[in-house]
Amino acid sequence: MKKLMNQPDQYVDQMLEGIVAAHPELKRIAGTQVIVRAHPKAKVALVSGGGSGHEPAHAGYVGVGMLDAAVSGSVFTSPTPDQVLSAIRAVDQGQGVLLVIKNYTGDVMNFEMAADLASMEGIAIEKVIVADDVAVENSTYTVGQRGIAGTVFVHKIAGAAAEAGMDLATVKRIAEKVIANVHSMGMALSPCTVPASGKPSFVLGEDEVEIGIGIHGEPGTHRENLRLADEIVDTLLDRILAHSGVVDGDEVAVMLNGLGATPQSELYIAYRRVAERLRARNIAVHKALVGEYMTSLEMAGFSISLLKLDDELMSLLDAPADTPAYRQS
Amino acid sequence: MKKLMNQPDQYVDQMLEGIVAAHPELKRIAGTQVIVRAHPKAKVALVSGGGSGHEPAHAGYVGVGMLDAAVSGSVFTSPTPDQVLSAIRAVDQGQGVLLVIKNYTGDVMNFEMAADLASMEGIAIEKVIVADDVAVENSTYTVGQRGIAGTVFVHKIAGAAAEAGMDLATVKRIAEKVIANVHSMGMALSPCTVPASGKPSFVLGEDEVEIGIGIHGEPGTHRENLRLADEIVDTLLDRILAHSGVVDGDEVAVMLNGLGATPQSELYIAYRRVAERLRARNIAVHKALVGEYMTSLEMAGFSISLLKLDDELMSLLDAPADTPAYRQS
Repeated sequence: MKKLMNQPDQYVDQMLEGIVAAHPELKRIAGTQVIVRAHPKAKVALVSGGGSGHEPAHAGYVGVGMLDAAVSGSVFTSPTPDQVLSAIRAVDQGQGVLLVIKNYTGDVMNFEMAADLASMEGIAIEKVIVADDVAVENSTYTVGQRGIAGTVFVHKIAGAAAEAGMDLATVKRIAEKVIANVHSMGMALSPCTVPASGKPSFVLGEDEVEIGIGIHGEPGTHRENLRLADEIVDTLLDRILAHSGVVDGDEVAVMLNGLGATPQSELYIAYRRVAERLRARNIAVHKALVGEYMTSLEMAGFSISLLKLDDELMSLLDAPADTPAYRQS
Repeated sequence: MKKLMNQPDQYVDQMLEGIVAAHPELKRIAGTQVIVRAHPKAKVALVSGGGSGHEPAHAGYVGVGMLDAAVSGSVFTSPTPDQVLSAIRAVDQGQGVLLVIKNYTGDVMNFEMAADLASMEGIAIEKVIVADDVAVENSTYTVGQRGIAGTVFVHKIAGAAAEAGMDLATVKRIAEKVIANVHSMGMALSPCTVPASGKPSFVLGEDEVEIGIGIHGEPGTHRENLRLADEIVDTLLDRILAHSGVVDGDEVAVMLNGLGATPQSELYIAYRRVAERLRARNIAVHKALVGEYMTSLEMAGFSISLLKLDDELMSLLDAPADTPAYRQS
């Protein structure tokens, strides 16, 4: 294992110290792995999180127009209910809290337990569960479809709704609309290594790639030999389009997400094919995000997320955001 | 070689197609590898560029408050003079053009040749050469110190000066002040592979890292066994501080730049140590940039850049920018 780190058991702690050192607009709740805005606002609060190792998800999305708190578990491990509860307590301004949960069994269980505890303390709390990965039904750690990079669109759009002063029920309704409208799928060219284990999470042959992989290296639909980027994009995009209900003439947002080690040049080569395919179908791209939005440590590979837009989602997607990993004015 | 690409000889072309497809605020000059703003502004123009494979540098910095054009050569290969000349002609608004060149022999030669040709056409043209890498004097491809990630601070600050309407001589003076004040150094945990060659550009042992490496894998100061992140940061930062003239009480900007395959979590672990060290020296960090700003394809590793600030540089660094890879309001 060749990693830029100190002691493996301090990996997450020191990462969080680095994040707040670099971004004074964020702060860490002492004694926790929770990152919140340094300058909170009176509004419905959004809390997300999950295992670490997916940076910039989720601490990179804490800030104006997106999240109010991000809870980081150990690498690829759900945060505990008490950590989530600390986040909820810290950000509740009396207008309620929406939990944005990726569909992994551990995350769902721990976030729901925290929600129950918060509810008993009188905090108005709602949750949504993101399950955008169309690759497989059920997988390691997950019952149903996994929640992956499409989650960032939930942060952005529900975050804009909350920032605009909408109430908890409305913010939840909008988050659920994003979830219904976003579909994703990924692939890996190489595995990654969890610091505490020291060994790659899976092994691929020299020319082998895994199609439909999850963001923790969970099995996908199949392995195959590496093909041209355009062919791989077509495989993912065909499946996404089939699940998405997107039809000719629709307007969409696209995320071409790098999993960690894939150069930006290659993400753009892949995006070029996505754009070409959508253009041929007369599907208009209102906004394209190309970069690392939800990673798997140093895994090479990418995912595509397609979000079908309507006027409400479009206007919230276009609203300003100011976070370490997502800025627009 | 396991890369997400189509034909290697279309690598740069298809990447550029992807960039303009994703970012409608940019456009490509037909028949060239030059990316310019779709909506130019009457002001002094900034042109930069170099070999491809360093994305988001430089096309990702084209936009409001930074560059007017980026010229991309083949991967790790200087663009030709005619490409640079196309960029100069495209962006000149009659107020002159500043070339921002990284100190590599090929870049310097080709950009200077283009400058001469543009000058003969009556275009007012000036150049600055960035040589921020304190690791080594002279190296593969370079006489003197190499130009690396500190170049992004030149784009940002000289770009803000041009955007504010300053004249060519002033923009050049400010760019030269940034160059005098910025010092960088990097290290690699793993090599990268140029698509056209198909083989890693160098080889490291299983526990071996290279200190002081260049952004094309040029040799650094030495190889050693992998140490703790804090120790590696100290090695780079000590050398940078020794060259920088930064003293206790100074105010700086810091870039902790990932070279391609290093997870953001590890960049923040490294930044944590930088912040700790600077705090101990009573050096105030006015702005920290942590992420991938100038990469070497899928090389694992990072560089640190330290920019000493004065009031003029600070106010230009804080000015708005709106480019694919650098946004602030």
